[in-house]
Amino acid sequence: MTTKYVYYFGPDGTEGDAGMKNTLGGKGANLAEMAKLGLPVPAGFTISTNFCTAYFAQGRQFPPELKAEVEAALNKVQEAMGRNYGDPENPLLLSCRSGARSSMPGMMETVLNVGLCSTTIPGLENKTGNKRFVWDAYRRLIMMYSDVVMEKAEDIEPAEGKGVRMQLEHLMARLKKRKGYTLDTEMTADDLKNLCKQFKKKVVEVLGREFPDDPQEQLWGAIGAVFKSWEGKRAVAYRKIENIPGEWGTACNVQSMVFGNLGEGSATGVAFSRNPATGENKFYGEWLVNAQGEDVVAGIRTPNPLNEATKNPQNQHLPSLETAMPELYRQLDDVRVRLEQHYKDMQDIEFTIQEGKLYMLQCRVGKRTGTAALNMAMEMLTEGLIDEKTAVMRVAPAQLDELLHPIINAEAEKNAQPFLTGLPAGPGGACGKIVFTSADAVAWHKRGEKVILVREETNPEDVEGMRAAEGILTARGGMTSHAALVARGWGKCCIVGAGDLKIELAGKKLSVKQPSGGEVKLGEGDLITLNGTKGRVYAGALEMIAASENPRFKKFMELVDKFRTMGVRTNADTPEDARVAREFGAEGIGLFRTEHMFYGVGSDEPLFLLRKMIMVLGEKAKSARTKQQQEAAEQALAEKRRAAVYDLFPFVKRSIKATLEAMDGLPVTIRLLDPPLHEFVPQGPVKQKELADALGIKPFEVKKRGEALHETNPMMGHRGVRLGVSYPDVTEMQVQAIFEAAAELIQAGRQPHPELMVPVTCDVSELDDTKVIFDRVKAEVEGRLGVKVPCLYGTMIEIPRACLLADKIAKTAEFFSFGTNDLTQMTFGFSRDDIGGFLNDYLSKNLLEADPFQTIDQEGVGQLIQMAVVKGRGARNDLKIGICGEQGGDPASVRFCYQAHLNYVSCSPYRVPIARLAAAQAAIKAGH
Amino acid sequence: MTTKYVYYFGPDGTEGDAGMKNTLGGKGANLAEMAKLGLPVPAGFTISTNFCTAYFAQGRQFPPELKAEVEAALNKVQEAMGRNYGDPENPLLLSCRSGARSSMPGMMETVLNVGLCSTTIPGLENKTGNKRFVWDAYRRLIMMYSDVVMEKAEDIEPAEGKGVRMQLEHLMARLKKRKGYTLDTEMTADDLKNLCKQFKKKVVEVLGREFPDDPQEQLWGAIGAVFKSWEGKRAVAYRKIENIPGEWGTACNVQSMVFGNLGEGSATGVAFSRNPATGENKFYGEWLVNAQGEDVVAGIRTPNPLNEATKNPQNQHLPSLETAMPELYRQLDDVRVRLEQHYKDMQDIEFTIQEGKLYMLQCRVGKRTGTAALNMAMEMLTEGLIDEKTAVMRVAPAQLDELLHPIINAEAEKNAQPFLTGLPAGPGGACGKIVFTSADAVAWHKRGEKVILVREETNPEDVEGMRAAEGILTARGGMTSHAALVARGWGKCCIVGAGDLKIELAGKKLSVKQPSGGEVKLGEGDLITLNGTKGRVYAGALEMIAASENPRFKKFMELVDKFRTMGVRTNADTPEDARVAREFGAEGIGLFRTEHMFYGVGSDEPLFLLRKMIMVLGEKAKSARTKQQQEAAEQALAEKRRAAVYDLFPFVKRSIKATLEAMDGLPVTIRLLDPPLHEFVPQGPVKQKELADALGIKPFEVKKRGEALHETNPMMGHRGVRLGVSYPDVTEMQVQAIFEAAAELIQAGRQPHPELMVPVTCDVSELDDTKVIFDRVKAEVEGRLGVKVPCLYGTMIEIPRACLLADKIAKTAEFFSFGTNDLTQMTFGFSRDDIGGFLNDYLSKNLLEADPFQTIDQEGVGQLIQMAVVKGRGARNDLKIGICGEQGGDPASVRFCYQAHLNYVSCSPYRVPIARLAAAQAAIKAGH
Repeated sequence: MTTKYVYYFGPDGTEGDAGMKNTLGGKGANLAEMAKLGLPVPAGFTISTNFCTAYFAQGRQFPPELKAEVEAALNKVQEAMGRNYGDPENPLLLSCRSGARSSMPGMMETVLNVGLCSTTIPGLENKTGNKRFVWDAYRRLIMMYSDVVMEKAEDIEPAEGKGVRMQLEHLMARLKKRKGYTLDTEMTADDLKNLCKQFKKKVVEVLGREFPDDPQEQLWGAIGAVFKSWEGKRAVAYRKIENIPGEWGTACNVQSMVFGNLGEGSATGVAFSRNPATGENKFYGEWLVNAQGEDVVAGIRTPNPLNEATKNPQNQHLPSLETAMPELYRQLDDVRVRLEQHYKDMQDIEFTIQEGKLYMLQCRVGKRTGTAALNMAMEMLTEGLIDEKTAVMRVAPAQLDELLHPIINAEAEKNAQPFLTGLPAGPGGACGKIVFTSADAVAWHKRGEKVILVREETNPEDVEGMRAAEGILTARGGMTSHAALVARGWGKCCIVGAGDLKIELAGKKLSVKQPSGGEVKLGEGDLITLNGTKGRVYAGALEMIAASENPRFKKFMELVDKFRTMGVRTNADTPEDARVAREFGAEGIGLFRTEHMFYGVGSDEPLFLLRKMIMVLGEKAKSARTKQQQEAAEQALAEKRRAAVYDLFPFVKRSIKATLEAMDGLPVTIRLLDPPLHEFVPQGPVKQKELADALGIKPFEVKKRGEALHETNPMMGHRGVRLGVSYPDVTEMQVQAIFEAAAELIQAGRQPHPELMVPVTCDVSELDDTKVIFDRVKAEVEGRLGVKVPCLYGTMIEIPRACLLADKIAKTAEFFSFGTNDLTQMTFGFSRDDIGGFLNDYLSKNLLEADPFQTIDQEGVGQLIQMAVVKGRGARNDLKIGICGEQGGDPASVRFCYQAHLNYVSCSPYRVPIARLAAAQAAIKAGH
Repeated sequence: MTTKYVYYFGPDGTEGDAGMKNTLGGKGANLAEMAKLGLPVPAGFTISTNFCTAYFAQGRQFPPELKAEVEAALNKVQEAMGRNYGDPENPLLLSCRSGARSSMPGMMETVLNVGLCSTTIPGLENKTGNKRFVWDAYRRLIMMYSDVVMEKAEDIEPAEGKGVRMQLEHLMARLKKRKGYTLDTEMTADDLKNLCKQFKKKVVEVLGREFPDDPQEQLWGAIGAVFKSWEGKRAVAYRKIENIPGEWGTACNVQSMVFGNLGEGSATGVAFSRNPATGENKFYGEWLVNAQGEDVVAGIRTPNPLNEATKNPQNQHLPSLETAMPELYRQLDDVRVRLEQHYKDMQDIEFTIQEGKLYMLQCRVGKRTGTAALNMAMEMLTEGLIDEKTAVMRVAPAQLDELLHPIINAEAEKNAQPFLTGLPAGPGGACGKIVFTSADAVAWHKRGEKVILVREETNPEDVEGMRAAEGILTARGGMTSHAALVARGWGKCCIVGAGDLKIELAGKKLSVKQPSGGEVKLGEGDLITLNGTKGRVYAGALEMIAASENPRFKKFMELVDKFRTMGVRTNADTPEDARVAREFGAEGIGLFRTEHMFYGVGSDEPLFLLRKMIMVLGEKAKSARTKQQQEAAEQALAEKRRAAVYDLFPFVKRSIKATLEAMDGLPVTIRLLDPPLHEFVPQGPVKQKELADALGIKPFEVKKRGEALHETNPMMGHRGVRLGVSYPDVTEMQVQAIFEAAAELIQAGRQPHPELMVPVTCDVSELDDTKVIFDRVKAEVEGRLGVKVPCLYGTMIEIPRACLLADKIAKTAEFFSFGTNDLTQMTFGFSRDDIGGFLNDYLSKNLLEADPFQTIDQEGVGQLIQMAVVKGRGARNDLKIGICGEQGGDPASVRFCYQAHLNYVSCSPYRVPIARLAAAQAAIKAGH
């Protein structure tokens, strides 16, 4: 049996339908579906995606079977349209368009007006009585065909500006100039006829061969070009970015041409069955009389509004289709209603009116903003068009983001040119005056100014300035750099890694070289606007629109939770974060990082004491003359260490208590201290002196001990539980803080649910070692305060070995929480801080599908996670398992976590709704 | 059924045998075995190790069943010995000795002369007619018992110098001083009787209770103390070091006392059935007349030689047992022969002669040096005592080490005191004059001086000095530091991480504080001696003995290879290393590190060019005004880069060619460049200036680019295959060097077998990317030179993800080589360079069994290795798999590799024989 490659669609006998997207591509499948619905689709046929694969496999040849199938389908088309292809009397013209499974806008080729040649032109002239139309169509065919079929598809790569299309454009421009025309429409039939002659001469000159004058040659050339464009540079590059497999292939849609430019009774337009920006249930679109589809999109003529109800200040003086062609508008509106009823979703449609007759050229599910997606979903649910599950599935989790942050007005941004781009680290928009230091940000903010903090890169000392700023812009750092992590945690607009940004800190100035050769220079106090969702920076103030206060948001999220089975917690380090996250629906804290309390708390004291503790831990006992003296010196140092550790106790306890209170009744996972010690050693001489004075040592000793703490690979150094192994006092102090804080809250009638989490575990022995302290302190505090404090004891799983030995680890750990940041680092051997040196090479060469720090690498890291889940639950069947890495807020990662049977994901507060939606969709997809 | 705890041994009805070590402990099992053989063993019984576990589980109590069993066994003993325990007329005295499954010398307790008390002393006086003997025995009992049973076993921890034993010693010393005695033997019966009285008073004073005068109380106290000593501090610490499980427990051997100190007809001694130092088949031992066993060991009296044949200059004037007691010597020699015939191995025995009667107190397999082990194995094989497999099993792989390196004369070392200790990084001994810089080492060496290079730590620039030195000593660094790796590779003596070493480089002086309070100060040119096997440093020159030229070594290794099934290759970076390794039996090179050719080659040029290349790779194209100019600038930079890369080509090719030639006919695995780039940026101003001049830039730019190369976690940074992904020229240059080198050798009639190995792979896409270059260059060189060059294409497996995705990776890779250094780093999240900060805490708390960089962590890293083997072979069944990490020369790791079905291990040249032996033993153990 030979494979069927060609599928007819049209008034009678349509062979495909909307379910056949894989075979017919999105465009072909929808054309077939519309034709089946009886909508006025110009007849045509689709050559399937399977043929695309075969075409390349067979060395770009058309087998005879295909030719026969095409001939048969073309006969049906001719019959349906009442015209014949290549017929000198009443010629049928065809379009050849690509159409892949998923939309690849503008990435592949189209050829229109195929079939015009010396034998068919006179017939068409007669039939339309419009010579100008015919020669304009022929002009367009030559331009398009010579470019697409004769040049690109033959892999000819001309020098810049030397492509055939450019040269033809040049001829046309010269003609218009000579004649004094400004618009293409001013060209007469004779002008165009003459131009076509010149065009054909130029084609021979440039490409070395004649423009084909045979309709069959034109048709097969166009079909071949469409298929070849699947392997064209742009398409291949786009597929890499969008992860579209090369083996999918494109279909080729060959369809009868209809013309919106046959006079005042013809028109063309595009429309959405509802407003794609707001979701409003009003027919929305644009149209032009006597025009071809490309004219609407090209932006040369301002298109007219579709109807009266959707006119806006810019187009209210223009005629609507509703008033200009009321009967055709009624027909079109009827089509709109039928399509929505049929597809149960908002449709994006293209139509052409040829001499008073409506034709449907395309329909597809319309793209929409997050706001529109949410509004439509909830309205269609109310209308009974869709059910609850469908409504939940209708909003892409990432789209929720725009509902949570202020954004730049899209219209305003459309007309603005960014002077700098970087990585979109914190979503939304922000506008403010440039400041260059954290202190300035705080000071300017206090006096009521909105500021953007611009830094080379940020570090913990910048945190207060970051909080005070509307947005953050840095020259260095990646998506998981300090600035990015902190900003996302707060839902703050942030752009990092803007490599072209040069900062002159002393002069409080910045400059950015422009590709055009110029340079943008700005200084402190100048206004800039950030688009943190796209990573664009604009000079001046662009109009902002406030975070949507859509009342449907809450309702939608309630609906989402109806289907969600996996928990969603938040990563929060302060009571304020906890409160924000709780409002966004967080069901607890999955990661409370003790060390984050040491900065941004409005007081220098805890940070100072932490630094002091680090210094004292690094101290060595002086060597004494006798053994007794030596022992005494060591004992004294041990006591000094313990005192320095316990200096932090009141702050740690206060911070934990406030957070437990803010999350009253919900679990709070408190991770033991895991600070990069050497980062906490003050770098500046003032702070070094301060610390030295407090310790009674010389400032150079502070510097020296800082250097001693330096590690070659700190990420794999003396951190996490390893600190507690070396300095058990540090663990004890924290455990005591947790139990005292919780016990006091219980005494006050609250319901704290602390969970102690040990970081960087690689062996159960570490957990057992720490558990001794945990049990001892628990008993001590419970005895002293007379209350029982329930507290789970668990661990981060962030070291590959912990996954491999998860069965042993689960014997002691009551819960696991995957730290996918570190797990990804170790599994790949990729340092998050250094990946910038090669990640782009990997992504651009397609060696990696995605940045594994953004979305979980399911193949590798995911394999370890699944292993740990299976082994862990095998050893302890009620083991609670979550994830608290950055990827916890990434929809694809949330879906993976659901499939891996995790109990919950934890993410930054502003990603909690996104995670809730992603989790609900995963459950629905799994048939829940 | 109750467990049997007590096992009798003696002339009749012995219940145990040598096979019951787990139950009876090593000592008890051998006593039983000797008794069964009919050898004259004083009757006794063993309380089993199972009881030890039960004892601790039951709160240190003796259950009635045990008491009954002991009573029954004691009755048999009394019958056999013809004396009764506690009998006033003819009292039996007992010893209570510990004895675990594996020997823990001196770690647990012993009590002798148990059963002496006010009622039995008179009877013994009558029976022996030797009052002095009796009171001396009682004096010893009180000292030992009060210390072991009444103090230590009661967990009393006295202040230093305040222990009961010290106080009794003090009393005895005072008595001797008062009487003017120098030897204990000068004390008379009355002295001793009086002393015992004082002792008993002191015991009450110090411990608050009476010394027990009841034989039963004494016996049960002693038994309890032996068991309790299993959980004593020393024993627990020793078990941790030796990885002996706590649940094994110790047995307690209760045995009739026999006395070598009952006059001139009594004697005691220890002996080996062959010489344990040389392996010579001569009865070898020491004895003393009228003495107890402890006197032989204590070293107060110089012991006599056992026979005439083994007399040496130190003891040739002393009487041998052979001449002093010929009949007893004959009996003992007979025992020796029977034991060797029975055990088929050299025995370490203890004997006592009591009034003309020989008693055997212990026999066990004797410890021996590596030389002795090898000689004995080969001789016993010749004698027909053992078979070939047994001979191979008789030498511990680590023992071979001493056969390959010069060592310090053990006698000389015995009398010397080290002034500094460090980590034993490179085995053997070395003696030379101190130098403090690499340049000095080279210069002194040139003028014929033997030098020891003493450095804070070493780096690649020190390599020439390291080669010139006899040995290397550093203050910093671990077992896998630069110095350690390089030294082991060369089989050079090396001690690293000698933390107490203070170097004053300017003054060319070193100083080391001594525990005693003093300080050792040495300077350039002073002689020191290193014991690299033990990590000890001595001032002055100790006598060295040359590496054994034992002709049996070669024969033994031939025998070893008869049973070996797994291949052994070497890690070698130079033709010299390759030749050494080949002599040691390497069957190819498993790891040739291209980057190692850049230092220590006697020329600065390659290193300079490498540095230049790194600088140029780090260069960015200047931004130009127009697009054309920009493109031209980028093109120019690309050419400059390629030129800089190819500057290295002749050196890389020459080095590879020479190594392939040295390994002619054997495979050579060449790893693509994997240098830590920033380490190659010169630090000093002179070198920076030189490089800057060559590049036409300013020195500060060299510094700046060096800083730009700095990474936060270089181990997980831009390295290995990632470099080639970013800079394909670097890969191409190396591949071309390999193929040209091999092709030219083939043309010259040689048989090179290069294998290209890609490092740091984490995804098959990286291999595919590199393979394109490999295939292209292979075809190009083969075409140009007209020869086919067979070359496998494979990868290091050193990233956890590579193990997880080994099935995919094996689709492209033709071989795997586990890089267990990096794999261990990533699996644990342990930075090899930073582990020093916490490894000791982990080992001392027993959180880790061993340093995973020394021996493969089979549980975690091993799991990944096994996974990769199974997945890799599943995808490609002839996949060749090896290991080239540092652990490839560790016997336990070699055994693991055998069990994991690896094809070969690769290790440094001097460890090749060790790996061969370990592999053969693994095969024998597996039943091959």
